[in-house]
Amino acid sequence: MVSPVSTLTADFNNSSSSTSSKVKKILTVPDGVNPALMKMEYAVRGPIVQRAEQLTQQLKDEKESSSVPFSQVVYCNIGNPQSVGQSPVTFLRQILSVLVCPSLINLEPSPFPTDVIERAKGILSNSNGIGAYTESPGLLYIRKTVANALTLRDEGIVASVDNIFLTNGASDGVKALLQLLIRSPNDGIMIPIPQYPLYSATLTSLKGTQVPYFLNEESNNNDKNWSLDINELQTSYNEAKRKGIDVRALVVINPGNPTGHVLSKDQIYSIIKFCEKNNLLILADEVYQANVFKPSKFLSFKKAVVDLNSDVEVASFHSVSKGVLGECGIRGGFVEVYNMEKDTRDVIYKIFSVSLCSNVLGQTAVSVMMNPPKLGDPSYEIYNKEVNGIFNSLQRKSEKLSKAFNSFEGVSCNNSQGAMYLFPKITMPEKAIQESFKQGFSSPDDLYCMQMLEQTGICTVPGSGFGQKEGTYHFRTTFLPPEDQIDNVIEQMRTFHEDFLQKYSH
Amino acid sequence: MVSPVSTLTADFNNSSSSTSSKVKKILTVPDGVNPALMKMEYAVRGPIVQRAEQLTQQLKDEKESSSVPFSQVVYCNIGNPQSVGQSPVTFLRQILSVLVCPSLINLEPSPFPTDVIERAKGILSNSNGIGAYTESPGLLYIRKTVANALTLRDEGIVASVDNIFLTNGASDGVKALLQLLIRSPNDGIMIPIPQYPLYSATLTSLKGTQVPYFLNEESNNNDKNWSLDINELQTSYNEAKRKGIDVRALVVINPGNPTGHVLSKDQIYSIIKFCEKNNLLILADEVYQANVFKPSKFLSFKKAVVDLNSDVEVASFHSVSKGVLGECGIRGGFVEVYNMEKDTRDVIYKIFSVSLCSNVLGQTAVSVMMNPPKLGDPSYEIYNKEVNGIFNSLQRKSEKLSKAFNSFEGVSCNNSQGAMYLFPKITMPEKAIQESFKQGFSSPDDLYCMQMLEQTGICTVPGSGFGQKEGTYHFRTTFLPPEDQIDNVIEQMRTFHEDFLQKYSH
Repeated sequence: MVSPVSTLTADFNNSSSSTSSKVKKILTVPDGVNPALMKMEYAVRGPIVQRAEQLTQQLKDEKESSSVPFSQVVYCNIGNPQSVGQSPVTFLRQILSVLVCPSLINLEPSPFPTDVIERAKGILSNSNGIGAYTESPGLLYIRKTVANALTLRDEGIVASVDNIFLTNGASDGVKALLQLLIRSPNDGIMIPIPQYPLYSATLTSLKGTQVPYFLNEESNNNDKNWSLDINELQTSYNEAKRKGIDVRALVVINPGNPTGHVLSKDQIYSIIKFCEKNNLLILADEVYQANVFKPSKFLSFKKAVVDLNSDVEVASFHSVSKGVLGECGIRGGFVEVYNMEKDTRDVIYKIFSVSLCSNVLGQTAVSVMMNPPKLGDPSYEIYNKEVNGIFNSLQRKSEKLSKAFNSFEGVSCNNSQGAMYLFPKITMPEKAIQESFKQGFSSPDDLYCMQMLEQTGICTVPGSGFGQKEGTYHFRTTFLPPEDQIDNVIEQMRTFHEDFLQKYSH
Repeated sequence: MVSPVSTLTADFNNSSSSTSSKVKKILTVPDGVNPALMKMEYAVRGPIVQRAEQLTQQLKDEKESSSVPFSQVVYCNIGNPQSVGQSPVTFLRQILSVLVCPSLINLEPSPFPTDVIERAKGILSNSNGIGAYTESPGLLYIRKTVANALTLRDEGIVASVDNIFLTNGASDGVKALLQLLIRSPNDGIMIPIPQYPLYSATLTSLKGTQVPYFLNEESNNNDKNWSLDINELQTSYNEAKRKGIDVRALVVINPGNPTGHVLSKDQIYSIIKFCEKNNLLILADEVYQANVFKPSKFLSFKKAVVDLNSDVEVASFHSVSKGVLGECGIRGGFVEVYNMEKDTRDVIYKIFSVSLCSNVLGQTAVSVMMNPPKLGDPSYEIYNKEVNGIFNSLQRKSEKLSKAFNSFEGVSCNNSQGAMYLFPKITMPEKAIQESFKQGFSSPDDLYCMQMLEQTGICTVPGSGFGQKEGTYHFRTTFLPPEDQIDNVIEQMRTFHEDFLQKYSH
C-alpha cells in the first residue's frame, strides 16, 4: 500500500489538492460526515462574516494601496463589545490578574485596591488555583456566591448550589439541556422566530424537531416593540401535536435576541401558565438580564415560577459575555435549573463531568458579575462609573440607531428595550428579490447584507439567519460600535441603503 | 392550573422532595431523558470521586474531631497536577497576567522580564484582547505560532493554520471529530481497551458503536510495558465487519492513558498501514506528547503519515492540561487535522463556530506551550529549571511507584514510558469478588478502590472504568502527588492492600 519513495512536493500539507489519492477518504462531504452537521446553519458566523474576515485581512495586507472602498471592517454581526472598542471593567481584570499570578499580591506599592486582593485570596484559598480542574459543576465557593446573588436578585427566593452548573459561556449549558431533552427525532422544542441560531443549530445537530412560534413585529400599542402572543404559542403547539410531535420544552429569549423586547410580568406569568397547561419545560435564555433599558427591572422566569407556586421545570442561562462586562473571550457562564429532580441533576452533572470542568477564570468572572463591589468597597466608585458609562452609552446608541433606521426609506425598526441588537425590517424591491435568487442567495436579505459589507465594510447578519415571517426581510445589527463612530455608521448605512433602492428600483 | 396562595414552605427550592406535584415532570429519570446520556459512564468523575469530595468536605467541616481515619484526601484519580501541589510555570502565568490586565505593562520597576512583555504585546496587537471572541478556530496569530511549532516538532513537515482548531482542552476536539464521524448507530470507532473513558462516553452519547481492541499487558520482551498488537487490531476489525458495522476510525492514545506505554516508530508505521489497508481515519490522542520518558523522542502520527507518503486522514489532539504545564483549569487545547478535504474542514469550522470560540487565555497557553522561551531569552533559564524539575520528578515518582506496586503481594505493574499514570493489576481474592457483587458493585475493583478511599483517603479509579480483559482487575493511579508524600502514599496503599487480602483471604 505504501510507496517507499516520497513523491510529494511542497504542496503535501494541503491534501485537498492531491491528485494521487491511494486510499478512499472517510470524512468526505456530503456522504462521509454526519448529515445533521451538514444541515446545521449558523449565520452569526456564516459566509458574510467569513467574507468580512477576508476583507479585514486584505486591508491589513494591502495597506495604503487597497482596492477595498473603505478603511476598516465594522463588525456589527455579533455581540462582541470588546472587539469594537468597549473597555473591560477594571475590577474584574485586576482580580483575574492576581489569580493568574498570585505573586502580584506581594508587589509594593500594590497596584491593586484591597478588595481586589481580598477577592482573589478568597478564591485562591477555596480552590487549588486557576490551574487545576474544579468539581465538574464548578467551584463550590463560586457556586455559593452565585446562589447568594440569585437569592438577592429574586428577592429572597433561596437559590441552591446544587442547581447551579458553571459553563464555558452560556452555549454549553444550552447544548447540555437540549441534549438531555432530545431522545428521538420526534421530540420537539418550541423556539421563537426570529431566534438566536444557537437553538436551531443545536437542535439540527441533535436531530430534534424545531417547533417554531412567531414573535409579533407589529404591536398594537404605541411602544413599537416586538411582542409575544400566547395564542400564537398555543397555535404552534397544537399544530406540532397534530403532526405527532412530542413537544417537550419552550425556549424563551428574554430580553430578546435579535428582537430586543423585554417581557412584562404579565407576559411571563402567561407563558408559565401556558407551559403548565401543555406540560412543557422552560429554557429561559436570560443572558441579557443586565441589558434592560425599560421596564427598568428584570424579572427572572424562576422567580415568576415560584411566585405562581408552579412546578414547571426551568433552566435559566446566563453569561459574562453580555451585560456590561462584555467578556466574550473569557467564556464564562452558568445554568441554574429549578424544579428538577435530583436524578435529573445527576445526569446533568455527568454531562459536564465528561468535559471535566469549565475554565476557572470564566468561573471567577461569573462570580464577579454576580457579586459586584458594594457601596463602601474601595473599588465601588470606579466600578460603578465604568459600568454606568457602558450601560448609558448602549442605551443612547440603541435609540439613535433605531431612530435613524426609521428614517430610511422603506425601513421600519422596533425599539430595543434591552439586549444589544436591532432587527430592522426592509421593504425589499422586487428586482432585488429576483437578483438575490439569480445570484444563488437563499434570501434577499443575504444579498442586502453582503452588498452592505462590500460597499461600507459594515458586517451585519441577514434576517434569514434568525428566521422571519415569509415575505418579510430584516437584518440584525448590534449597537456596539463606539459612540463617536455611530453617526458615521448610520450615514454609511443610509448611503448604501439609498444606493441599493436606486439600483433595484426599476 | 395555578393555586393563588403559595402553600410552599422553606423547602420550595428543592422540588424533588415536593409531594404536591401539579404538573407532570418532563425530565424524569429514566424515560424523560435522552437514553444515551443515561447509559453514558465516566468513571474518572464517577461515584468514588463523588465520595472523595464528600470526605474532603467532611474533613473540612469536622476539623479536629473528625470521624474519618485520615487527615486528607489524596486525589490520584485524575491527571490534575496543580491540585496536588505542582506549581504553575512562571513564564506562562506572567504572560497571562499581562494580557488580563495590560496596564501592568506600565509598572515601574517592571515585575516582568522583557520577553514576557513582548509576548503579551504580540498577542494584544494581533487580537482584540482576551475579552473578545476570536475567529471560530482561534486567533490566526496563535494558530501561526502553533503551525510553526508543529513544523519544528515534525522536522520540517509544514503545518498549515487552516488545519488547526484551538479548543477548550482536548475534549472539545475529540467530541467534534466523533460527532462528525458518527452518522448512525451502525458507524463504529475502534477504541483501545483499556482506554480513557472520554471515548466510550462520547460514543455512547452519540449512539455510535464502540469497536474495542485489547492492548497487551504481558509483553514478550523484558521491558514490561503495555503494547499494541496489529493482529489484535485486525481481529477486532474483522469481527466488527462481520457484524455489519461500518468501522470508520481508530483511536490511538500515545503515550497511553491509562497504560503509560509509548509506541515505537515501527508500531506507528504498522498502525498507519493497518488503517490504509482497512480504510480508517486515525484519531491520535497525543496529549501526553511532552510526557515521554523513553524512548526519549516523541513521533507524531502526522509525521509518520507523511513519512509513509500516506493519504490516511489524521486528527491529532493536544492540551495544556498535561505535559509539564499541567494547566488543567485554564482549558486550552487544539486539534490538528491532516489529509482532510477543505469541505470537511469547513464543517469542522462550523461545529466550532456554534460555540463561537475557545477561551482566549487557553489559546494563549497553547501558544506558550508550543513556543517556549529559547536559549538567550530572559526567561529561558528559569523556565527550563522549572520544566526540567517537573519532568524529572514525574519520572522518579513513576519509577518509585511502579517498583513498589510490583512488591505488593499479588500485584503486577508495567512500567510507565510516558503519560501520568500507572495501571497495576490485582490478583483479586475470590471472596472479594463475591463481596463486591453482594454489595452491588459492577466490578470487584470498584470495591477495592472504594475501600482504599475509605481507609486511606487515596482516591484512584477502578480498572472497570477504562475497560480490561475479563477476569483481570486493575486500578489507575496518577504519579502526581508531591515527591515528599510518595513514600507515605505507598505505605498507606501497601497497608490497605495487605489488609484487603487478609480480609478476603478465607
